[in-house]
Amino acid sequence: MKLVVTGGAGFLGARLIGTLLSQERPAGFPEFTSIVSVDLAACPVDDARVQSVTGDIAGKAFIESVITPDVGAVYHLAAVVSGQAEADFDLGMAVNMAGTLTLLEACRKLPQPPRFVFASSLAVFGGKLPDLVPDDIAVMPQSSYGAQKAIGELLVNDFSRKGFVDGRVCRLPTIVVRPGKPNAAASSFASGIIREPLAGVDSVCPVPTGTRLWISSPDTVIANLIQAAVVEASRFGDTRTVNLPGISVTVAEMLDGLERVGGKDARARVTLAEDERIKRIVLSWPGDFDVTRSLSLGFTRDGDFDGVVRAHMRDHGQ
Amino acid sequence: MKLVVTGGAGFLGARLIGTLLSQERPAGFPEFTSIVSVDLAACPVDDARVQSVTGDIAGKAFIESVITPDVGAVYHLAAVVSGQAEADFDLGMAVNMAGTLTLLEACRKLPQPPRFVFASSLAVFGGKLPDLVPDDIAVMPQSSYGAQKAIGELLVNDFSRKGFVDGRVCRLPTIVVRPGKPNAAASSFASGIIREPLAGVDSVCPVPTGTRLWISSPDTVIANLIQAAVVEASRFGDTRTVNLPGISVTVAEMLDGLERVGGKDARARVTLAEDERIKRIVLSWPGDFDVTRSLSLGFTRDGDFDGVVRAHMRDHGQ
Repeated sequence: MKLVVTGGAGFLGARLIGTLLSQERPAGFPEFTSIVSVDLAACPVDDARVQSVTGDIAGKAFIESVITPDVGAVYHLAAVVSGQAEADFDLGMAVNMAGTLTLLEACRKLPQPPRFVFASSLAVFGGKLPDLVPDDIAVMPQSSYGAQKAIGELLVNDFSRKGFVDGRVCRLPTIVVRPGKPNAAASSFASGIIREPLAGVDSVCPVPTGTRLWISSPDTVIANLIQAAVVEASRFGDTRTVNLPGISVTVAEMLDGLERVGGKDARARVTLAEDERIKRIVLSWPGDFDVTRSLSLGFTRDGDFDGVVRAHMRDHGQ
Repeated sequence: MKLVVTGGAGFLGARLIGTLLSQERPAGFPEFTSIVSVDLAACPVDDARVQSVTGDIAGKAFIESVITPDVGAVYHLAAVVSGQAEADFDLGMAVNMAGTLTLLEACRKLPQPPRFVFASSLAVFGGKLPDLVPDDIAVMPQSSYGAQKAIGELLVNDFSRKGFVDGRVCRLPTIVVRPGKPNAAASSFASGIIREPLAGVDSVCPVPTGTRLWISSPDTVIANLIQAAVVEASRFGDTRTVNLPGISVTVAEMLDGLERVGGKDARARVTLAEDERIKRIVLSWPGDFDVTRSLSLGFTRDGDFDGVVRAHMRDHGQ
């Protein structure tokens, strides 16, 4: 059987594919003999078991050509990121909403309902939130990206309830430290203020240092995405949606960790210059969650922020 | 300017149109000189100011032909009801989800963002709920109708946030007593067990008598739908979605009211025969809500259930 990963050329998708191919298949994980990466670009993972299919997830015929009867599981990670979906509403709707629906409809036609892991986001939250966010709080997106992800969550849940797919929705914490370059995500700075200084590059923080973020290292997020496909369906209860566990840190605490692990020079490379557009989006996201349910389902989180910085430095030979 | 009412041939739509045409325009209500009823059938309201346009709300070209530049406000009431949307998933998706999106996209092209009142439903709720449901509880639909309405809510909110429409989402209580015949809605029995006995017809109750319902009379729902278009946008705060106030009654209390107002013979016409399909849907709905916010926004509710029965009898000369 095939495992399909949309967004397989992206940072998260490629890392997921690389991890899945480098380890034994975890108990309970769907069987697969090859992985199909679906993205605008080719998957960078160099392995004969990876097939890269390039195309636009918003295209119905393209999606239908990818979801062939031998597909047994799908990771749906592809998305137009928050900043871009806010700037180009139609593009966000076409990819994040219509693309997700098209993919689900294609999966519905498979001979067996495939396991379907959907990456959602903290951006579904907004409005007045308690300091510790419980599982049953209403979503109130303050961005189009958040609204589109919230719609995707509802679709995956209803398609699962109907037995069309066996869906699992992971609301990802903000991933720190993402490698590579800054992108159009409103959360891009959260990695930038660690990654750039460690590479000797100046970085600007666009939110107040008291801003509390809910974060996870790349390794932990990948482990949790794999766990999402492992959990028995019946254990989810009334909803397939899970707030993945993370750690709650303020920007000030992140900068302190940067200084402790990376040194004073690294810390000195971060300057503050608030950006109203980014602030408006990021400040609407919750900074801490009740993790009782997610931990009980076998999901995990990082130990502390210094470890998150060290993991990044280790990955990059720093 | 024109006021468009989708579902204008239905019970609620026709009653809204009749009420709006029979009273002075309330202060703050959008100006209109005519009302366009959009539905599969013609609007039964006999008034020169009503224009009936018949067609399928799932059709893009049809919707675009209806939302002309002189449209100043829209009531979007048309929907495939809960039982039908559960039985025919594709039809529910086409009308309740795609139809709502098409209508919003057409409204987005208007010269001025129109006031847009969307009728949503208790069916968005499900899972474990507190006895008194607060405004910020997560939706967890246990029916495709509920999922599609929840998606519509997200769309109306995001289109409003972007300034494409000036949206207002009303989650309607179960309306009791609906006139006419039973329909495919899972809540159809709630009117049937009052309406049929009062007309000398036997009726079957498919849920346990301890089932708690959140109900509103037709007159109160119409008054609240009108109020929804009157409230100043800024008063909604972080969300355009409102749980309309209702009264919380058990089926047993409804039957007691039926007996008090309609007599012992009427009560004797109701028999109990549980229906698992209907029970599963109806028991997932909340029975009581915190109404602090909705009352503060000027929405109203009925006094007691006996008054609800009396209002129905008065309407029907009983």
